[in-house]
Amino acid sequence: MDYVQQRKKSWKVLPEVYFGEEFQDNIVLKFGNPRTAVFAHLDTIGFTCRYHNQLVPVGGPDVQDGNILVGEDALGPIECTAHIVEDQLIHGFPRGIQPGTNLSYKQNIRVDDEYIQAAYLDNRLGVFNALEICEDLEDGLVVFSTYEEHGGGSVPFLAKFIYEKWGVRQALISDITWVTEGVKHHEGVAISLRDQFIPRKTYINKIVALAAESGVPYQLEVEGAGGSDGREIQMSPYPIDWCFVGAPEDNVHTPDEKVSLLDLEAMINLYKYLMQHL
Amino acid sequence: MDYVQQRKKSWKVLPEVYFGEEFQDNIVLKFGNPRTAVFAHLDTIGFTCRYHNQLVPVGGPDVQDGNILVGEDALGPIECTAHIVEDQLIHGFPRGIQPGTNLSYKQNIRVDDEYIQAAYLDNRLGVFNALEICEDLEDGLVVFSTYEEHGGGSVPFLAKFIYEKWGVRQALISDITWVTEGVKHHEGVAISLRDQFIPRKTYINKIVALAAESGVPYQLEVEGAGGSDGREIQMSPYPIDWCFVGAPEDNVHTPDEKVSLLDLEAMINLYKYLMQHL
Amino acid sequence: MDYVQQRKKSWKVLPEVYFGEEFQDNIVLKFGNPRTAVFAHLDTIGFTCRYHNQLVPVGGPDVQDGNILVGEDALGPIECTAHIVEDQLIHGFPRGIQPGTNLSYKQNIRVDDEYIQAAYLDNRLGVFNALEICEDLEDGLVVFSTYEEHGGGSVPFLAKFIYEKWGVRQALISDITWVTEGVKHHEGVAISLRDQFIPRKTYINKIVALAAESGVPYQLEVEGAGGSDGREIQMSPYPIDWCFVGAPEDNVHTPDEKVSLLDLEAMINLYKYLMQHL
Repeated sequence: MDYVQQRKKSWKVLPEVYFGEEFQDNIVLKFGNPRTAVFAHLDTIGFTCRYHNQLVPVGGPDVQDGNILVGEDALGPIECTAHIVEDQLIHGFPRGIQPGTNLSYKQNIRVDDEYIQAAYLDNRLGVFNALEICEDLEDGLVVFSTYEEHGGGSVPFLAKFIYEKWGVRQALISDITWVTEGVKHHEGVAISLRDQFIPRKTYINKIVALAAESGVPYQLEVEGAGGSDGREIQMSPYPIDWCFVGAPEDNVHTPDEKVSLLDLEAMINLYKYLMQHL
Repeated sequence: MDYVQQRKKSWKVLPEVYFGEEFQDNIVLKFGNPRTAVFAHLDTIGFTCRYHNQLVPVGGPDVQDGNILVGEDALGPIECTAHIVEDQLIHGFPRGIQPGTNLSYKQNIRVDDEYIQAAYLDNRLGVFNALEICEDLEDGLVVFSTYEEHGGGSVPFLAKFIYEKWGVRQALISDITWVTEGVKHHEGVAISLRDQFIPRKTYINKIVALAAESGVPYQLEVEGAGGSDGREIQMSPYPIDWCFVGAPEDNVHTPDEKVSLLDLEAMINLYKYLMQHL
Repeated sequence: MDYVQQRKKSWKVLPEVYFGEEFQDNIVLKFGNPRTAVFAHLDTIGFTCRYHNQLVPVGGPDVQDGNILVGEDALGPIECTAHIVEDQLIHGFPRGIQPGTNLSYKQNIRVDDEYIQAAYLDNRLGVFNALEICEDLEDGLVVFSTYEEHGGGSVPFLAKFIYEKWGVRQALISDITWVTEGVKHHEGVAISLRDQFIPRKTYINKIVALAAESGVPYQLEVEGAGGSDGREIQMSPYPIDWCFVGAPEDNVHTPDEKVSLLDLEAMINLYKYLMQHL
């Protein structure tokens, strides 16, 4: 919110900003006459402290023995290592941590000519993309959501809000996907034709046709598993079409997520094109 | 839609027809003053082409090595065999198929005095039943839905629509169920008392009482697994009761689904009775 | 409903009562100007009779060979034992039971100075707590829900109703939780910081702060599994915060559920404090 409030004056169009208690921890920016909404989730995977030195996962962290976790409870800041002992996930902090305290990977951002590598590129880069779009967006919604990693009603609420208020029926999911045998670094932004859920073919076809027209490098992704905020839009009682469009990463849900800078640039360029032409 | 548009003039009551972009790929027919809605899903199980020669299932096909699949991509029509190699599902088409292309079982309809056998009787027969009901329906909704096999918001949207627009609180699920140790060919249409989900007892009791009164042959089904469009009505925030009523089939989700003609006739007759008396 | 209708005249504030066909089997009591809703589920786990002597579970009963089950079908009352034979759940009633008949544990209530022990304390005690709150509640909703044990749209419907009608955005889940290594008998009512789902931190913090202020004994619970009516509130498109607050029990989902009377008293006292101060 601080960034949006400071930055919005320099954007091409000044958006209406929706947030606060009625929006729980979500933010909606409305530019001009919106036809399409970009969804970028703000939340991350992580860990909740249980009893003794036990940890319970938030979302699906791919944690390795020795990963460094950070957080804070009433007794002060916390930095400790994660350990997997007999299939139990524990921490090595010398004192007890108050039950319910959340921990996340310690951040370590590495950038070179080709790649950015860090914890939580999923979905820091999706959020970055959404903020870049704001710079010159004329008509559209930019929606910052919560609970994507763990599941829970923020997107159902937001889908209801944007459909009932503005009749918006097109969505793009600004998130990060997986490098696989069919989706590779440096080959452009991935357009997902399906994951565990299957978006409507007519909408997907429109997006692929626009991508081809745009000249931006892109690759097509087909998966049988995985999900995104698109899942909740799909399941909602609002007839909103969705498509996942995002750069791929290696080392998903570890502290070492890795994305090609070229793919990130393609992601931003394709979103700008789609928000204009969809 | 072509069938409905041509045929509707000869129906006893001319329905209002709802479809088009706001309805995604669903269709709603409204006859008179509706109290009850019939839901028949239009979609089928199948396969999405992934990379190389890989296939990803749509819904839960019970595929056998050698099943013939058909489809089409930008390069032309496709007919090929499915293969299961080391638990991986692949196709044997000589050229690559464009990722995201959908394939389905090749159709082969067989009818004799006792049975109809074909691919996709689930839910071609549920749709047929729904269209037969239209012939002389005076008051009711006939709803053609999508995404039943794979999951996704078409029924939540439709439940919202029919409840908010007409206050309809009764639904019948026109779909095909399983032949089991308790549900057999030639013993009538099955009324499901529960599957993975449990409809409200008061509504189910009303339907069973009407079935007994109707003189139509029926059998009672009780399962702990399986689901239908009823699942999404159950989970929706609208107080709509639902009951699955449908003929049973053998060889579920294979190209050789098999239904007794007597059970199909019972299905149509019971629906006509229920739509009048519920 | 009988209890509510008889008893309500002696309550401090006379509530508006919502129930009947439009509410399926749910009941909503509205006192004064509500800010917070208490949800107590009325349903129980149990069994549906299938074919022959087979049983299908309703919810997740933790059944032991020899448990006594009771019910009734058109042929009369039923009392029989449950048996587990080759992983199949069956009953030992001498005659066939009509398919679709529901059975539940035979009740056997035992109370001493320290404990109450019986079948279905989950959620008889949650309902008892909700009715105790009614005695002197000035502002609030008390909601009796269904389908908590098996899943299905009663809470989505109720969440929609209370949010749209009164703008209520705070909920407390009046239910019974588990005795574990971190939550023990006689140490007070448990406040769940998370289970399979994760409520919003800001709301949880407020409740823990009020609990500390109240002087009522309480303990903090953190789990990675399990769920409650909170799950459906979480997933709903309404921005309603929720927190599970309930006494812990041993022998969950058996006929011998066991709760400390001291913890039950703490539960009632904390609810009364929270309903006043939240």
